[in-house]
Amino acid sequence: MNRIVLGVEYDGSAYAGWQWQQGKRTVQGELEQALSKIACVPINVLCAGRTDAGVHALEQVVHFDSPVQRDLRGWLMGGNSHLPDDIRITWAQPAVADFHARYSAIARAYSYVILNRPTKSALLRNQATWCYLPLDERSMHRAAQHLLGEHDFSSFRAQSCQSVSPNRLMYFIDVYRDGEKVVIDLCANAFLHHMVRNIAGVLIEIGSGKQPEEWTAELLAARDRTQAAMTAPPHGLHLAAVYYPDRYGIAKHPLFDKLPADAKRFD
Amino acid sequence: MNRIVLGVEYDGSAYAGWQWQQGKRTVQGELEQALSKIACVPINVLCAGRTDAGVHALEQVVHFDSPVQRDLRGWLMGGNSHLPDDIRITWAQPAVADFHARYSAIARAYSYVILNRPTKSALLRNQATWCYLPLDERSMHRAAQHLLGEHDFSSFRAQSCQSVSPNRLMYFIDVYRDGEKVVIDLCANAFLHHMVRNIAGVLIEIGSGKQPEEWTAELLAARDRTQAAMTAPPHGLHLAAVYYPDRYGIAKHPLFDKLPADAKRFD
Repeated sequence: MNRIVLGVEYDGSAYAGWQWQQGKRTVQGELEQALSKIACVPINVLCAGRTDAGVHALEQVVHFDSPVQRDLRGWLMGGNSHLPDDIRITWAQPAVADFHARYSAIARAYSYVILNRPTKSALLRNQATWCYLPLDERSMHRAAQHLLGEHDFSSFRAQSCQSVSPNRLMYFIDVYRDGEKVVIDLCANAFLHHMVRNIAGVLIEIGSGKQPEEWTAELLAARDRTQAAMTAPPHGLHLAAVYYPDRYGIAKHPLFDKLPADAKRFD
Repeated sequence: MNRIVLGVEYDGSAYAGWQWQQGKRTVQGELEQALSKIACVPINVLCAGRTDAGVHALEQVVHFDSPVQRDLRGWLMGGNSHLPDDIRITWAQPAVADFHARYSAIARAYSYVILNRPTKSALLRNQATWCYLPLDERSMHRAAQHLLGEHDFSSFRAQSCQSVSPNRLMYFIDVYRDGEKVVIDLCANAFLHHMVRNIAGVLIEIGSGKQPEEWTAELLAARDRTQAAMTAPPHGLHLAAVYYPDRYGIAKHPLFDKLPADAKRFD
């Protein structure tokens, strides 16, 4: 068997999410179909972070095992030739035998993008969440700092979440303004289902002055999903990058330069 | 008659350009249809810069005359409620009687966006032109400076161009890198048909080392379209902003801060 790792970018607008579903268009389904054509046998892929319907990825990481040998150019260029143009393989490399896209990851980084202006955007309609109330991004940033470290994130967890533990280790949350956009960059070992969108929903309430900055700390302590804000819409969410131990030879995204040098996989 | 000015943003991907055409989906067609519903009579609009198929606008400026009185909120919110979500009216204000979106403009600013990396992008597939050859953006910037000032731009003009004169006054061209993107910001009194895309095509040849920096000056002097490069694709092109004399009360985009204080309409 040959284990291969891919970087995959996608516009999630047209998909029912990452995960294969019978009779629905999914990113996993499209990718498996394209790679199976290159391999001439069925290929199953595993990803670092299963994204929901409408969520995008700048760099999803995926691995698969192939019984047939193809050169890397074949997986990259050949795969892309069989994919729709809203899914692109951006790199391909051989994997160390024990590499696993999901279980080897030390951390994931997501960006949640909010367009903060009086009117909606035509160009960003599918890639940013619109908020017409003026947001105080510095207040949102301060509020977010209460969430750093290891916590039980039950207040930010979807009912449908299948994770055994509600605990996660949050490395950083940075909220900043970029012109008309307010961007929330988050990095944790992993995220519960809807966790980023639930945090974004809470920070939008705080940024628009409906809740005080301390609300994040109160919600965290409450461990009760029913007390938090609405889940923010999916189309503002982007899986930005995934971080693996050096020995796997996967390029480290600059977003992870802020992590402690001894950051390890957290269980 | 009430003369109204609108700011309009659009994603040109799904349109056969700005200009109304029988049996085709155009931005002008959609906008006139939406405004006519608000007015309950047919409305005709005039724009500052007619964009080609696939070209986008961050801020197109449009004016129209209405025999009926509607408040500004009606044109803005009502208009948007009848428009597809890839066209958005971003502001509406009453126009001074002699205001004309096209003829009153002092200058137009366009941005041409090139994604410069080995593989195509899923998320930017319709809003940036892909170039896999590494581009030297500083070389492109220097080459572009030969085009500043008043010149006969025949070498950069489409055969189909209907302008009486091939002369235009170029205020600035700035080429810079923004991560994986190379951006060309251009500002002139007005542009000939395909002029930005033809300049972008030439600068890409220079940036990739196929032509020397002096090529822009040589082409300008030749006044011969057949000597220049390919027209760069439409989807990298964005109409960024339009500049009018202060007395029209239209907010000046920061892009125009670099223009001379005494810049006037150029004929």
